[in-house]
Amino acid sequence: MREVAERAGVSIATVSFVVNNTKPVSPATRERIEAAMAELGFRRNVVARALASRRTRILAMAYPALQHRLGSTAMSFVTSAASAASEREYHLVLWPVDNDGVELTELIRQGLVDGIVLMEVLLDDARVDALISTGTPYAMIGRTADPAGLPYVDIDFDATVDTALDHLQSLGHREIAFVSERPPSEEFRAYGAKVRAEAAFRGSCERRGLEPIILECAQNAAGGRKAAGELLQARPRTTAVVIMNEHAAFGVVSGLARSGVRVPEDVSLLSVSTSSDMGAMADPVLTIMRSPGIHLGRLAVQLLLSQLDGGEAPSTRLLPCELHQGESTAPARVRG
Amino acid sequence: MREVAERAGVSIATVSFVVNNTKPVSPATRERIEAAMAELGFRRNVVARALASRRTRILAMAYPALQHRLGSTAMSFVTSAASAASEREYHLVLWPVDNDGVELTELIRQGLVDGIVLMEVLLDDARVDALISTGTPYAMIGRTADPAGLPYVDIDFDATVDTALDHLQSLGHREIAFVSERPPSEEFRAYGAKVRAEAAFRGSCERRGLEPIILECAQNAAGGRKAAGELLQARPRTTAVVIMNEHAAFGVVSGLARSGVRVPEDVSLLSVSTSSDMGAMADPVLTIMRSPGIHLGRLAVQLLLSQLDGGEAPSTRLLPCELHQGESTAPARVRG
Repeated sequence: MREVAERAGVSIATVSFVVNNTKPVSPATRERIEAAMAELGFRRNVVARALASRRTRILAMAYPALQHRLGSTAMSFVTSAASAASEREYHLVLWPVDNDGVELTELIRQGLVDGIVLMEVLLDDARVDALISTGTPYAMIGRTADPAGLPYVDIDFDATVDTALDHLQSLGHREIAFVSERPPSEEFRAYGAKVRAEAAFRGSCERRGLEPIILECAQNAAGGRKAAGELLQARPRTTAVVIMNEHAAFGVVSGLARSGVRVPEDVSLLSVSTSSDMGAMADPVLTIMRSPGIHLGRLAVQLLLSQLDGGEAPSTRLLPCELHQGESTAPARVRG
Repeated sequence: MREVAERAGVSIATVSFVVNNTKPVSPATRERIEAAMAELGFRRNVVARALASRRTRILAMAYPALQHRLGSTAMSFVTSAASAASEREYHLVLWPVDNDGVELTELIRQGLVDGIVLMEVLLDDARVDALISTGTPYAMIGRTADPAGLPYVDIDFDATVDTALDHLQSLGHREIAFVSERPPSEEFRAYGAKVRAEAAFRGSCERRGLEPIILECAQNAAGGRKAAGELLQARPRTTAVVIMNEHAAFGVVSGLARSGVRVPEDVSLLSVSTSSDMGAMADPVLTIMRSPGIHLGRLAVQLLLSQLDGGEAPSTRLLPCELHQGESTAPARVRG
């Protein structure tokens, strides 16, 4: 509003008169204001809404679905957030907007929602800047490089990776590789979840005196098959694989099988941040670190609504994935 | 608007004066109008928007994600619709609202969007009634029992099933079972896609002189494993399975394998209305009838925008799934 008034060289009150048609304003002034609104990308009723500053009781979850695959595990965040919103008499809608913040800003300007839940947060995320500069209440699922003081909930990657490696070490594994996702674009190289999980793996290996072997592959079965081949070639002594790339996990199993390497007899496989449903689709059923999506979606809405309605903010910010034993991990093969 | 005016016993013009604060109205009248708005669930700026009848340039895709699983194949409809909307300078958002039409109507009343794309259409769908009675432009992906004259695009299930059976018959299969999804709730028993696919299978089998064997199972791997067991028990002579339940397909493969039945050597498996990515996750890679999601999402947006902007409506309404040969279908086993 202030922007419109400034650009037209009039007071906010005068803008309000024009928008709401509440007082006669000279044609020239009206034209200046309408031009300013057009230039700034406002529409009349959006401005009306902003002036009324009423609530819509709608929350949006911003997910860059055209850039980053929205799989069934990610959907658990959406559905749990929608349920939590519904219980508080809010609607939750999904905005499949890019990570660059442009479309997000356009939608925010329309005054359609009371607040935003951000997913797939980058370490340096243009959407966070857009939210802060427009004064939009928000909560992140994920976090930027330095999230202190910002409203977020996230997976505790350190605890998750430690539990995964505890499990594998207890089975006697010492040569453990980590397979993460190849970013769909350069932008996603700084995807918080990927960077933090890899760092957690490196740190945990170091503390255990293990060599951290890290590979990347595309987010599909073909990527997993390729990664399996690369691993057998470059690191034939590997006895266990931790993978955070749920669609590729299926390819790792079949890729190993096609080279005569059996899961779990020859190589154990543990899939991180996935769902039991996905794990059960593989044969053998995957041992997983289960994504806390159903909890984090809910916590994020609670955190957002604490800003809107003054309720209590959740005390928990970080939740680990939990180990669910399947059939894909077993004692390390004793080498001849 | 007319509802508000009628309930308050005033003219639409008087409602407009109160909402836009354009003319003095007696406190008693104002109170009556505000009470009527509150009772009818309108908010001031929503009414203002309706009066202004401006466009938001936002389309919503209504998907009952809390009732019906939104898998990666369904997501292809969403992402292609979002791309198509974006090319026409519209935003597309996803509303995860139930099939009963209640939340959809609430959101429509807010005047947030110019039109709606409906997914997971039931044969008798309360959402269609809500859209028609509120005069909201819409397009269905899917169709009701009698969609003549309604705006829809859909999968051509007759052509799809015929192609699938042609493929299997050409490989010598005569004992062919169809596995569809068990509805997540009774409401989804009348899910258009399920009903039409089963009817197409029955019809095509009849024309071919084959016995139509139809099973249902839950939409997950455990469901597929159970279905495999039931099939081997009840119909041991089955040599081919057509499945329209993509998550369960994985369970069918592993369920058969655990009973010593190999795909495709002993039983062929063909997965209908799925994506190449999903098919590649299975081992063996599934032969699929590929979902035309990337085309139908786009056609639905085109059909909706033809109502909003007067552009041309697409001439194509029905698209079949296309056969993509994988490793899961092979010549019928010759029985001893």
